[in-house]
Amino acid sequence: MHKTIGILGGMGPAATADLMNKIIERTDAACDQEHIPMIIDSNTRIPDRTAAIKGEGPSPVSEMLKSAKRLEAAGADFLIIPCNTAHHFIRDIESDISIPILDMMLETANLLQRRGVGCAAVLATEGTYLSKRYDRVLGEKGIEVINPTPAEQEVLMSLIYDYIKSGITEARSLPRDQIKALTSDLKSRGAQAILMACTELPLAFAIMDLIDDSCVDPTAVLAEAAIREAGARIR
Amino acid sequence: MHKTIGILGGMGPAATADLMNKIIERTDAACDQEHIPMIIDSNTRIPDRTAAIKGEGPSPVSEMLKSAKRLEAAGADFLIIPCNTAHHFIRDIESDISIPILDMMLETANLLQRRGVGCAAVLATEGTYLSKRYDRVLGEKGIEVINPTPAEQEVLMSLIYDYIKSGITEARSLPRDQIKALTSDLKSRGAQAILMACTELPLAFAIMDLIDDSCVDPTAVLAEAAIREAGARIR
Repeated sequence: MHKTIGILGGMGPAATADLMNKIIERTDAACDQEHIPMIIDSNTRIPDRTAAIKGEGPSPVSEMLKSAKRLEAAGADFLIIPCNTAHHFIRDIESDISIPILDMMLETANLLQRRGVGCAAVLATEGTYLSKRYDRVLGEKGIEVINPTPAEQEVLMSLIYDYIKSGITEARSLPRDQIKALTSDLKSRGAQAILMACTELPLAFAIMDLIDDSCVDPTAVLAEAAIREAGARIR
Repeated sequence: MHKTIGILGGMGPAATADLMNKIIERTDAACDQEHIPMIIDSNTRIPDRTAAIKGEGPSPVSEMLKSAKRLEAAGADFLIIPCNTAHHFIRDIESDISIPILDMMLETANLLQRRGVGCAAVLATEGTYLSKRYDRVLGEKGIEVINPTPAEQEVLMSLIYDYIKSGITEARSLPRDQIKALTSDLKSRGAQAILMACTELPLAFAIMDLIDDSCVDPTAVLAEAAIREAGARIR
């Protein structure tokens, strides 16, 4: 009997559906009933995480906590959160519920360590950079972090907010050349791995056909960790 | 303020994620917070619907009811069920909860009526054919129903169960020629519309690149009905 996965989502909704899809596709199951039960709270009332970390918007904690408690009451055995930026608030959520949260950043750091990556570039939101949580979690594994320049960070924020979160997802509309130049620059600065460390980025990179062997998808890492934690096998 | 959509899912999980994706893609929203809140119960413990209708397996009603009540308790304002076959049991669920269920079959029949379709082919599971609910709902709108031959129904059951529900989803593995012949046969018998009336079929048809203007996708019809019911606009 599998554990029930609770997904504290809506940050954004497309990234939440992406995590759900990655769990389903990667679960070794031959019929509906062999799949893992999941409850997904796509709570789009959660305020923007980056704005909160910048001190320019309300905290997302109370809405995140409402979702966490709803998921716990509905029978979730553990939670996962498909939003890297929201991991800044993970301790505030954990302390008020009695089920554990699988940490996407920690799972990603563990994967990089197993692969022997010594230096990783983090592509993320402004909130994630300000939070410095990836720097800490990767630093604790001895992994050096390379962050994009301020100009490159603006390009990423635009890709995340002006395109994917705004629903502009046609390949021809996305700034492919800019993003390709940005990842090349990070590799030339020594990055062995490119972390698509905002859950909108694996969607954007897939549409732009920019995923190569150096790209690491924390959403997919979290999906596989959740499958194992639920007691199922990976396909 | 949008209503919260509750998705009674897991029948199967990929079809549930497909409905979620179709709601997100079709909602006119420029940021996370403009999307519709959704709670999704992907309850893979629900027994097979076709087996139950054939009298060869346990009823899905008690597990479906558990999900419905969980979704109601979690704050869903109305429910949608991304499984055509499960609609056979919809009255048993409705009678035990106090929130409404949007009926995918009825919404699809309304769409066909608006389009002036006089004759539609229903591609579905054995359970849906035995239930005769599409025949009744479409018949009440004056729409003639053409069902596949028993041999064609076997091809469809295999596509749904041996491929999509089993996780075999590579284009080259799917029986494209058989399905193309089947839809051609139904059109030659007078079908003006081909209803992909099992929620695994829009997934299968998309992978096989077999969706044309005659194909009607009840999952997409339900997604748009849910967006309107929640008080949002279609993109």
